[in-house]
Amino acid sequence: MQTFGFLGLGIMGAPMAKNLLKAGFAVTVWNRSPEKCAELAALGATVAATPAEVTGSCAITFAMLADPAAAEAVCFAPDGALQGIGAGRSYVDMSTVDAATSQKIGAAIAFKGGRFLEAPVSGSKKPAEDGTLIILAAGERELFDEALPALEKMGKKCLFLGELGNGARMKLIVNMVMGGMMTILCEGLALATKAGLRSSSLLDVLDSGALANPMFKLKGAQIAQGNFAPAFPLKHMQKDMRLAIALGDDLGQPLFAAANANESFKKARALGLSDEDFSAVFQAISS
Amino acid sequence: MQTFGFLGLGIMGAPMAKNLLKAGFAVTVWNRSPEKCAELAALGATVAATPAEVTGSCAITFAMLADPAAAEAVCFAPDGALQGIGAGRSYVDMSTVDAATSQKIGAAIAFKGGRFLEAPVSGSKKPAEDGTLIILAAGERELFDEALPALEKMGKKCLFLGELGNGARMKLIVNMVMGGMMTILCEGLALATKAGLRSSSLLDVLDSGALANPMFKLKGAQIAQGNFAPAFPLKHMQKDMRLAIALGDDLGQPLFAAANANESFKKARALGLSDEDFSAVFQAISS
Amino acid sequence: MQTFGFLGLGIMGAPMAKNLLKAGFAVTVWNRSPEKCAELAALGATVAATPAEVTGSCAITFAMLADPAAAEAVCFAPDGALQGIGAGRSYVDMSTVDAATSQKIGAAIAFKGGRFLEAPVSGSKKPAEDGTLIILAAGERELFDEALPALEKMGKKCLFLGELGNGARMKLIVNMVMGGMMTILCEGLALATKAGLRSSSLLDVLDSGALANPMFKLKGAQIAQGNFAPAFPLKHMQKDMRLAIALGDDLGQPLFAAANANESFKKARALGLSDEDFSAVFQAISS
Amino acid sequence: MQTFGFLGLGIMGAPMAKNLLKAGFAVTVWNRSPEKCAELAALGATVAATPAEVTGSCAITFAMLADPAAAEAVCFAPDGALQGIGAGRSYVDMSTVDAATSQKIGAAIAFKGGRFLEAPVSGSKKPAEDGTLIILAAGERELFDEALPALEKMGKKCLFLGELGNGARMKLIVNMVMGGMMTILCEGLALATKAGLRSSSLLDVLDSGALANPMFKLKGAQIAQGNFAPAFPLKHMQKDMRLAIALGDDLGQPLFAAANANESFKKARALGLSDEDFSAVFQAISS
Repeated sequence: MQTFGFLGLGIMGAPMAKNLLKAGFAVTVWNRSPEKCAELAALGATVAATPAEVTGSCAITFAMLADPAAAEAVCFAPDGALQGIGAGRSYVDMSTVDAATSQKIGAAIAFKGGRFLEAPVSGSKKPAEDGTLIILAAGERELFDEALPALEKMGKKCLFLGELGNGARMKLIVNMVMGGMMTILCEGLALATKAGLRSSSLLDVLDSGALANPMFKLKGAQIAQGNFAPAFPLKHMQKDMRLAIALGDDLGQPLFAAANANESFKKARALGLSDEDFSAVFQAISS
Repeated sequence: MQTFGFLGLGIMGAPMAKNLLKAGFAVTVWNRSPEKCAELAALGATVAATPAEVTGSCAITFAMLADPAAAEAVCFAPDGALQGIGAGRSYVDMSTVDAATSQKIGAAIAFKGGRFLEAPVSGSKKPAEDGTLIILAAGERELFDEALPALEKMGKKCLFLGELGNGARMKLIVNMVMGGMMTILCEGLALATKAGLRSSSLLDVLDSGALANPMFKLKGAQIAQGNFAPAFPLKHMQKDMRLAIALGDDLGQPLFAAANANESFKKARALGLSDEDFSAVFQAISS
Repeated sequence: MQTFGFLGLGIMGAPMAKNLLKAGFAVTVWNRSPEKCAELAALGATVAATPAEVTGSCAITFAMLADPAAAEAVCFAPDGALQGIGAGRSYVDMSTVDAATSQKIGAAIAFKGGRFLEAPVSGSKKPAEDGTLIILAAGERELFDEALPALEKMGKKCLFLGELGNGARMKLIVNMVMGGMMTILCEGLALATKAGLRSSSLLDVLDSGALANPMFKLKGAQIAQGNFAPAFPLKHMQKDMRLAIALGDDLGQPLFAAANANESFKKARALGLSDEDFSAVFQAISS
Repeated sequence: MQTFGFLGLGIMGAPMAKNLLKAGFAVTVWNRSPEKCAELAALGATVAATPAEVTGSCAITFAMLADPAAAEAVCFAPDGALQGIGAGRSYVDMSTVDAATSQKIGAAIAFKGGRFLEAPVSGSKKPAEDGTLIILAAGERELFDEALPALEKMGKKCLFLGELGNGARMKLIVNMVMGGMMTILCEGLALATKAGLRSSSLLDVLDSGALANPMFKLKGAQIAQGNFAPAFPLKHMQKDMRLAIALGDDLGQPLFAAANANESFKKARALGLSDEDFSAVFQAISS
């Protein structure tokens, strides 16, 4: 049985690594705060002292870090992942990073003779636990094929999207669509309320027809209750909208709907809602 | 067993009336072109010569006409539905009409001593055949309760929304949300294509997560194939967007997302796409 | 010397009629509140008891009423302007009305054998006093030529724009441009302030270059002072934006900038600023 | 009489330096292509071989370079401006650069003991020749006061805007307002044409009232003639719109009007109009 490496045992990483263990794979783990490793060790994981130890001892190492800064630090630190990389040592970064960070890490790995895949995921804590993430991989096709048996234990859908950066771009576009759907839902809810219709009636109708989707069902009900506890913070959504629009700028694609949704999220930021859930854009729209 | 009337046996009306017959109700039908009645008669329906004959002989008559002009004509013509109305004779207009038309018909029915319900539907040919429409009723609550056994054979969801006009308003708001979702989907597809990603990959990702909805699945695939055969003509969608925005204007609700989607649909109209499916807004967005 | 009729001696009408008298024309006046006539009589005007008396005794009668309802009432009342109209009696309505009202009045005048011109004006109290209005005439060309000697005493610029309705349409388009200019000015002022720049610096720069215009100079200074005393009420601007967008809808012209400006004015209405000056849209933009 | 330095004798720089000479100042000039110096020498300028020679021999040196890259190159090259800087040697960069470039140059100058002012200008070739530029200075106040006698020969209006970066920010905001005004003008022209009104009539009305401004007069006439010869290329306008929106993003200021104007300019880019005048956005709006 092949041994996989896994770096980063946070809210997302821990359940993802557990799913590899449950599937019977041998897993060597590392985490910045070592106490997080105990739970995994109890399930059979080997614990390493540094990222370099992991990448130097496993054919394929997965990483799931909090943000681009953490992804870079874990890769480039003195005992970082890069130090263990060489011929026959591959790295699959599943963190959500921008295309530039991904390309920087990929170039360094390739320079050392290793292979690299970016594989950001769509989905949060629950799908990570259930192994139902959507994995947006890009980079080296052969590595994707080799990593697939492990990726399929973490996600219900694993797509290979071509050249490095495409995983990040796909994630931005999906989030742009999500932001646009949220603003039009909020306008619908605000208009319905002013028209004397119940939010719950609109949500019920939407959920019964061709527009029915899990986000409207979950977030719609929370909006109707005034519950904006952050699952995906509004400031992150606004940042993704901005980056998607910048991508459109680079590529010469006008995006009127996205640009307007972005301004509504900015309006919400100006109202002090940056750290609320992105559905709090409702407050900017209805006020 | 109660006898229901049914006026209008077009693409929607014919299967709706059939569903009443299949459920065992007695049904008296009328249609402008009498040849359409034959099929219903073969299933056991009684055929009447005029709308007045139907409303004058049934406790509750349903109407499903093509547009506001047809709805008014069938009601107010010399042998129209209004002529048969009186105490104990009720009228349920399921046609898609604006709130003003609905209120005009309702007032005339009430003046004659009858009761009135507007009950526009969400859903098209297939749900009409399957009895899975969503019925947005408003007007007299008691009539809704009495008509419910029949409505439930035509729709999978029957909502009572309060005062007359609320059915029409709800339908506008739902269509506004639909139009907004379509424009952001098209922007996502256009951006993905320019970024070198496949439309089918984006659709696959969208269909795997929290944004998955039947419209994206069906229309997204058709857009990717360049198939814009009209199921819901673009000009009708643009009209509904305009009316929804006008409703926001009346009620003092700003609607930036809807206003922009409306302009994209107008751009599509200017490109000569009025009679294509409303998903043809993709051509205005991607060109 | 020819005698002109003049109906309506309000804030606009009184100074306009005075300019005719000052130019040496004989003028017969009427006003709903007769006490307004005294000042004009003191300057040599003949006072009539009804609109019909004016139109029946003058070859050309000008009307300057508050709104479409007043314009219709003065024309169609029992002793209204229409009663005095016949061959050789012409009517020039300078009120701001929509194209439909204008066409209705024009048709009635023509039916009685008279001639009709719509001639709404651009400019408010001060230009009315100074005789520097801009007059947007449309309808019968010959009547325009005959009325020109009088129109030129009221306006510094008199344009003939073709068929009836074009005067109203031109005014809407000008107001649409005005609304768009106001929203981008307000966004500039709000952004400058947040960037730590003074409003007065931005206004100074704008006033020194190719964008310099009297509206920015006047309204910009008032916005900077927080002075939103109504010269042109925001609700009227929003109505004109809405009508201009509806015109674009009729003609298949997308108007993204206007549609967005309209939503900002609606946002201002939702904030309770309907009766403030239209520059109060700044409060919706900067808050 | 004080000697001023001047670096960069292009379309803008040459006439600006000439205006200093005409005013009687001694001027030492440098240009990358030395042949451009001859004309200035004929008017009495001293010609230097390198930027360092200029800054090392003049108390105050002005620079007017083509873009941020040129501004950096001239400052940081081996014989660049920075080499001549020290105590008592000041540098005024009048090139149009972003706030970051300006701050980078300013920091280097300060590190060497010199003083720095950014002073981008509003206005193009003709105002440069006429000495009627608008100068947007920021940085060290004392240096501004000392340079003012020279600045006033180049510009009709010289504003001191505070900390470094404010000159660049002010210029962005002014261009953002310019872009917004252009899009609403184009929508007005497109709508007027579709309504059967002449472009020239609308321009005439606009030019007669409170919205009259030199840009509408000049560009409006050119648009009506289909003349889009580049004075300010569309791609540069779109870049400035994008940067202004990014500034709003940093500062939490929603900018719906600017964001929409930006998308219209992007639409124009997608139509291949990048190198036309920015008024060519008309073609994106009217098509």
